[in-house]
Parts: sequence; C-alpha cells; structure tokens
Amino acid sequence: MENLICPGFMAAGVASGLKKSGGKDLAIIFSKIPAKAAGVFTSNKVKAAPVILDMERIQSGRCQAVIVNSGNANCCTGDKGLDDAKTMARYAASGLGISEDLVLVCSTGVIGEPLPIDKIQQAIPGLIDSLRPEGVYDLARAIMTTDTVPKTISRQGKIDGKTFTVIGVAKGSGMICPDMATMLCFICTDIDADHELLKNLLYNSTQRSFNRITIDGDTSTNDTVIIMANGLSSAVIKGVERIDYFQNLLDDVLIDLAKQIVRDGEGATKFIEIYVKGALSDNDAHKIANTVANSNLVKTALFGEDANWGRIIAAAGRADAPLEEGKINILFDDVLMVKNGMGCGKAVEAEATKVLMKPELRISIDLNMGKGCASVFTCDFSVEYVKINADYRS
Amino acid sequence: MENLICPGFMAAGVASGLKKSGGKDLAIIFSKIPAKAAGVFTSNKVKAAPVILDMERIQSGRCQAVIVNSGNANCCTGDKGLDDAKTMARYAASGLGISEDLVLVCSTGVIGEPLPIDKIQQAIPGLIDSLRPEGVYDLARAIMTTDTVPKTISRQGKIDGKTFTVIGVAKGSGMICPDMATMLCFICTDIDADHELLKNLLYNSTQRSFNRITIDGDTSTNDTVIIMANGLSSAVIKGVERIDYFQNLLDDVLIDLAKQIVRDGEGATKFIEIYVKGALSDNDAHKIANTVANSNLVKTALFGEDANWGRIIAAAGRADAPLEEGKINILFDDVLMVKNGMGCGKAVEAEATKVLMKPELRISIDLNMGKGCASVFTCDFSVEYVKINADYRS
Repeated sequence: MENLICPGFMAAGVASGLKKSGGKDLAIIFSKIPAKAAGVFTSNKVKAAPVILDMERIQSGRCQAVIVNSGNANCCTGDKGLDDAKTMARYAASGLGISEDLVLVCSTGVIGEPLPIDKIQQAIPGLIDSLRPEGVYDLARAIMTTDTVPKTISRQGKIDGKTFTVIGVAKGSGMICPDMATMLCFICTDIDADHELLKNLLYNSTQRSFNRITIDGDTSTNDTVIIMANGLSSAVIKGVERIDYFQNLLDDVLIDLAKQIVRDGEGATKFIEIYVKGALSDNDAHKIANTVANSNLVKTALFGEDANWGRIIAAAGRADAPLEEGKINILFDDVLMVKNGMGCGKAVEAEATKVLMKPELRISIDLNMGKGCASVFTCDFSVEYVKINADYRS
Repeated sequence: MENLICPGFMAAGVASGLKKSGGKDLAIIFSKIPAKAAGVFTSNKVKAAPVILDMERIQSGRCQAVIVNSGNANCCTGDKGLDDAKTMARYAASGLGISEDLVLVCSTGVIGEPLPIDKIQQAIPGLIDSLRPEGVYDLARAIMTTDTVPKTISRQGKIDGKTFTVIGVAKGSGMICPDMATMLCFICTDIDADHELLKNLLYNSTQRSFNRITIDGDTSTNDTVIIMANGLSSAVIKGVERIDYFQNLLDDVLIDLAKQIVRDGEGATKFIEIYVKGALSDNDAHKIANTVANSNLVKTALFGEDANWGRIIAAAGRADAPLEEGKINILFDDVLMVKNGMGCGKAVEAEATKVLMKPELRISIDLNMGKGCASVFTCDFSVEYVKINADYRS
C-alpha cells in the first residue's frame, strides 16, 4: 500500500452508528497548524447544510480540520440542519482545542433525514483520540457509501530542492456527473501557497478531473473538494514555472482520483474514455463527449459488449453542438468502426467487439471540422446499477 | 377492439424478412385521393435517409401514401441510403399507380446497416394486394420494434353537423426522449383543412404530447409524426372556434398515443406523470419536470418503490431553472411528502410508499414561486431496461 502520510497532517475514522452496517462513518483530518485552504462545491441549487457552511467559512482561506460523516447527507434539513452542521464543527473544534471557524464539515448519504447529531457528539472524543499520521486510510474507509473500494493517492514533488508531499482521498460511485450521492475529495499538502493561488490551482484541476467524469448524469447536493496546504515543507509555489509544475502535479492527483471514482462506478464493469476531437471548439467537444457518456443506450450497449455505433452517432447528433454526419469517424481504441458517417462493415465490427471485451477502452469520435477536443471518463451501465439504486435505502 | 377505419384510407402490413423474428415488418397507408399532409421530424442533427426525403417532399403539403419498414433504420447509410429510400417510394408508387412525389417513407430499427431493398421490393406487390380499410391494425403491428403492444386510437367529431374521423397509430418504446429507436406516428383523418393550418395544428399537438414524454432521454434519428387529411367528410376546419375544437381533439389523440408509448417503455413497470407548478415560467417548469423525469436515480428509486424524495429534489436542483429549496412542496398523488423543502416524516413516507406501489401515479413538485407549470410523462427504470438494451442486436 502506498504511503499516505503528509507532514503535519493526521487523520482518523471510526464507527458512530450512522451506517446501518455498523461500519466506519465518521472521520476527521487535522493539520497541526492552520493551513491555507480552498474548496470547490456542488453547482446544484439544492445544497446540503455543510456545503452552505463551508462555502462561507472557506472564504477566510484558512482551515485546520475537516470533520466528515457518511450515512446521512444533512441535506433538505432546514435551519436545524445548518445548526447541526455548526454543532458538529463546534464539538470537533472543542475536542481539538482550536477555533470552530477553522473547522469545515462534510456529509454524504441519504438526503432529507435529520442528522443524528447525538451519535456524532458521542463519537467525537474517540475519533480525536485515534488521530494519527497514518490515519488517512481509515478516513478513506469512513467516507465510503456505495463505494466498494477506498480511493487514495500520494505524490511527492520538489521545488527549489525542497521535497513536498500531496495526498488525496476521495469517495463517490453514484449520483456522479460529477456533482452528487456525493463526490467528496480531500487534498492535504505541505506546500506553501497563497490562498488565491491555491483557489485557482484547485479550480483548474477540478475542471480537468472531476468535471470530466460521469457515471449516471446526476449531480449531488453535497459535492465538495477541499485542499489544505500547511506549508511545512518550506517549498513555496511562486512564479510561472513553479505554478505550472504544481498545477500539473495537482492535475495528476485529481485525475487519478476521478478515474478511481469511475472505476468504482455503481455496477460498472468497464472504464471508458469518450474522446471527441475535430470539433469547432473544446466546449463543443466537451458537450458531445458528455452527451455520449451519459446516454443510457450507449452505456447499456457497452455493458452488453455490443459494437452498436449507431447509438454513439445518434447521441452525438442530439448534443447541443454542430457536427456533420458525413464527416464523422469513430474508433474503438485503434479500430476504425465508422468512416465519413458510415459503418466499416462486419469484419471491422468483429474487431471492435474484441475491444469492447476489454475492461478499459477509448472511444474516439473525430468530427473533422476544427481543432476542439475533450475527453470524458465514464463506465458502462449494468443490471447491477439498477439493482443498487432500486434498493439503496432498504 | 376499437374501430380503426377512416373513410378513404386503407392500410396493410406484411413480413418481408427484415426482422430476424420473421414478424411483420413492412407496412403501407394509402388514401384513395391525395391528402393534405404535414409532418414533424426528429431534432437530431443525424437524420435517417427517409427523414431527409420526407422533410423535402412534405413541403408540397400533399401526400397519398406512406410506406414504412421496421428492422432497419436506414440511417448513417450515406448516398446509398437516400437512393434506397427513394427506390422504396418509387416501388410503392408504381404498385399503387400514383406519382412517387406523393409517397413518404419511414424506417425504424438498427442504425448503420444497409437497407435490404431487394427484400422490400419483393414484398411490395403482396403488401399492396392486402390493402384494406381495416388494415390499420396490421400496420400498427408491422411498425413495432421493441414495442410489446401495438398503439392505436380512433376518435370521431362533428363540425357543422358533419361527422369526421381521426385515427392514429404509433410505435416506440426505447430511445424515446422523444425524438428516437424511433417514435413513429401516423394520423389519418377525413377532415378538410388548409395545409398551413394542418402544419400548425400538428406542431401544437406534438409539443403537448410526444414532446412531453421521456423514457430514456435518448433522441432518435428517425422520429416522425405525419398527418394526412383527405377531406372526404366534407367537415372543414375554418374559423377560431372550429380550429380550437379540432386542436383539442387532435391533442387528445396524440397525448393518448404518447401515453401508450410510455406505458410500453422498455422494461417499464410504472407510468408516472411529473407535474411541476409554481415555476417562474412554463418553460422553467418543463425544464425541471424533464430533468426529474430523466434522472436515472429517480427512475430506479421508482422501480424499487422507494419514496426517496431526496433524489427528486436533487434532480430538480440541477435543472437549468431557478428554484428556492425552502419553498418546494412535493406530493405523491395526494400525499404531501415534502413541505418547504423538508420531509414530512416517516408516517407520511409509509403513505407515499403505498402510492408508489400503484401502476400509475403523479409526482407534483410545487415551487411556490410563480404561475408556470408543465407535465412530463415517464416510466420507471428497471433491470429489464438494461437487459433489453444490452442485448438489443444479439
């Protein structure tokens, strides 16, 4: 297992009784000194209480701890929900001996049920007692809902001869468009960076990672990505070159976590990149890639390993972006299935079907009109997805 | 069975060998005199060859026959496909002894495979021989693909003491958003109406019916609605009052057929109306209703009979229309589940779960902001849907 330790950070995860299964459901990240912080939150107009709280608190650019629960989204819970989120932060702050303004809160789980704040209160002392540098893996487990595996990453870099670390933890496997049944991501680093810069870096990486994945086209009320930078490495991000260097590293970290989420998509059996090129703009390419990646007909055909490219071209055709049918080429990995809008015959289809049997593949759609391109990562749509989501709360 | 005869019209349906099952797959409608005609076609930028042909021909405002095949969409088939569509019309015209410009063509089935025009040619003489006034039911069967039941309707009305008839036939059960795996609808009437008026009437009714249903959010390359009016009843639509009267009747006919399509949705076990009111505009209400009706998480919860209103409010929140969480009420039929954005408790949920066990139900979302309202009709999303679409071509 990779080394999930970042200097100055500790984490923990325990069971507080929120999950019916009795599994870990309450977690915390703590930085021994207040860290610079930035966040990206759901675009859904219905926002969970902790999201509303965090969006306000993060404006200070500082954060020392994040407390997270799974099993309950604390969403559509009114004034009581907002009070509960604040109370959760206050209990954590008091246990840690820090100001409550420095504590952020995240929740994930069922929408519309009151947060069992008493259970959380009772569990917080034990949670704080179990804080340790290697506790990140427990955190990763405690924030899982329908996830089947924890999602973590660790990277090191060097700036001006100083080694720094970035670790990341994420959860999410349904209601992912992104923005939902919640995608959560926490990044801890000992780099030093200005708050505004950190905000931009995080926004850019989020655009290139979590905003490029889709499992079911649904968008959560609770999605949150938080970065905390405590500066303990003395490596400072300053100047174009260092900024680019760190941006690339952060992109890698977030893209890796985003792909881990897609691989663990509810009921997924395959990981698919939908790559659109030759569009009039990157934005057009993204619209088309997204429409194809969200098409139930495309995704069920992928599950059935059926090289039904007609559904791909039909989905592309209903996207809100220009295309000319007679110019479209479609490849399954390196197999050219469609040339100038027409199929390349049964022999090629047999080759394409072989590609479809692979657990990871790329579908390229070349519009042959311009230079715009974009990739979206998605998974297939299986019988299991329906079963998981028909029975989620029972 | 209802009387599916409209004066002056004959229809037929036969097996030509396009469907692997050997079932009926070629059909024709014929009016003994040239009828006024209007059509509404798919908004997909990828359009099947017969759609391209019909969009051109219907501009004359006249049509005497429509020939339709299932089992092959004749889409993404290039110049050859367009030639095949024209040839299909020419064979029909020659057999009927009419001008080929008066023949429209429709196809539905798999995209991207060449149309077996020889099989169609061989079957046309037999098809024309079997034309008869009561042949509409055979037509309804011959145009089915994944449909499990034929979809028909018959209505009579009276204008200025003259009785007229409207009959309608439709098909479609997947790739329905609407616009796709194709929705086809043919309306025959012996009313007399100006071509421009007929166009407007058909457009209006289509907006209120087929554009208010969704099964899987996918949009076909072949969707077509055609109306033919032969005037034989001598009832003439002229003047506001008669226009309103006929518009209402046509609305009824198309809405009935649209609902028949949803009831036969691929794998559907329930028929659900999503009714949004209190929006700032009808357009906003429609956007929200459509987003909820297309949410896989909402539809799988409906399949699981789980009163998970959190998914409904979350889907509403990601629609591109304003709303205020704290003002939203949600009802399952008459059961108030959510008041001012919050759940009404476990007792109410038990009542709502009973509503969910019904085969037909209405989910009302009241935004309490304005006077905009809209309904969208949809079905639940079952394990069967995935199975049907994973195995469609095999």
